[in-house]
Amino acid sequence: MTRTFCLTIAYDGTDYAGWQVQPGQPTIQGTLQQAIKKATGHDVTVTGSGRTDAGVHALGQVASCRFPVWTASADALLKAINSRLPSSVVVTEVRDAPLDFHAIRDAIGKRYRYQIQVRRQRDPFQHRYRWRLRREVDLDAMSEAAAKIIGHRDFASFESAGARRKTSVRDVRDCQLIVSEDFQRSGHLAVEVEANGFLYNMVRNIVGTLVEVGFGKQPPAWIDDVLSRQDRIFAGPTAPPQGLFLKEVFYQPFQPSD
Amino acid sequence: MTRTFCLTIAYDGTDYAGWQVQPGQPTIQGTLQQAIKKATGHDVTVTGSGRTDAGVHALGQVASCRFPVWTASADALLKAINSRLPSSVVVTEVRDAPLDFHAIRDAIGKRYRYQIQVRRQRDPFQHRYRWRLRREVDLDAMSEAAAKIIGHRDFASFESAGARRKTSVRDVRDCQLIVSEDFQRSGHLAVEVEANGFLYNMVRNIVGTLVEVGFGKQPPAWIDDVLSRQDRIFAGPTAPPQGLFLKEVFYQPFQPSD
Repeated sequence: MTRTFCLTIAYDGTDYAGWQVQPGQPTIQGTLQQAIKKATGHDVTVTGSGRTDAGVHALGQVASCRFPVWTASADALLKAINSRLPSSVVVTEVRDAPLDFHAIRDAIGKRYRYQIQVRRQRDPFQHRYRWRLRREVDLDAMSEAAAKIIGHRDFASFESAGARRKTSVRDVRDCQLIVSEDFQRSGHLAVEVEANGFLYNMVRNIVGTLVEVGFGKQPPAWIDDVLSRQDRIFAGPTAPPQGLFLKEVFYQPFQPSD
Repeated sequence: MTRTFCLTIAYDGTDYAGWQVQPGQPTIQGTLQQAIKKATGHDVTVTGSGRTDAGVHALGQVASCRFPVWTASADALLKAINSRLPSSVVVTEVRDAPLDFHAIRDAIGKRYRYQIQVRRQRDPFQHRYRWRLRREVDLDAMSEAAAKIIGHRDFASFESAGARRKTSVRDVRDCQLIVSEDFQRSGHLAVEVEANGFLYNMVRNIVGTLVEVGFGKQPPAWIDDVLSRQDRIFAGPTAPPQGLFLKEVFYQPFQPSD
């Protein structure tokens, strides 16, 4: 009996060349497909909701995969896969999905988290998970700038060259600066962005631009100007990959197929 | 002018074969000595307060090193070294020390932290820094057992074979279970142990033994029994290296040499 499963996956992307299978390189997709092959004997394609770049992490990546035959439970599949995965990748949930469920096509939104550490000195335990800023930032100005990102807008100014989409209009539902409770001690900040879809490098370009405001190089109102230009050259630099986490992918609720 | 410096160092030991220089292997000591060579031109020996094993981390390792000539400030030395170090190692402080200061001989105590995560499912972001326990532990029993470690005692039962010391009597000043405020969500625990000195694998053997109590395999009073046997075979297993952090090394206050 053919079945389609919906997998939720968390991974530390540090030692991987990104999500997508590439010959001779360790990738998350390749690692999952190998684990599934070992666990079930099946050569299946694991379709992620989107590619993550080298060094980017996931708290809740979602992937679909279809098995020609699988008679055990979804939970048995989860355990079988996890026992073949390295410490840096874990499947946190496996659910039965409709036969035609497709993790890319059916996604109706995503939420990313971008982690920052404001700290003069390097922190050897955070360099894989945070972008370190060496000087103080104006938190109020960054928060004000972040709020200006929210809305149904053309985000061409925040799209890096690469896989170009038909339209660069997206619906950003949330964009906020999250200041850690122990910020004074840890210097930990995060920017979370939720949208119906994202352009290439969009979160990293937004964060790089917000940090320009944080450093006082530009006022918060500059964000409106950058958005209106619809050209990447007007935004700030691209924040580095290691701070980025794909936090959640949203779908319409579904009933498993019979 | 010959000067001796006292360096405080933090490192992520994941990708290193421990502290001590070994031919053909990346080590913390070797990495520091290479950075100093590049920064100053001097071939100096960096003497750590003690060796840490492969995979063990440090929040506050201390090392001494003597320079035949160094005319700039201690702070200039710190910056020069740090700019040559990889992200996983950082010198957090450099102080002028008496000419005969020696990081091993002069240490009067150390504090270690051992990090645990109680969690059924793997956490890809903690596997480098915590020992994962797959089932519940009795926190009260572990705390009670930890308190029994404190005192001036013979810790032979907690000494792994290896570099044997003249005496296995040590003065443990503190041993406590620290339950994270968000334990219910994160499953984060730590054991901190402070003593005038430590035997080989002593902290990891203590933690492995406390976890046996946490699992309910033994009552807290078993600790007294284990201590009185003065033989390693009566204690619990050795906890794995990745949870261990050398947190602080203590010295008598010193005035820098002129």
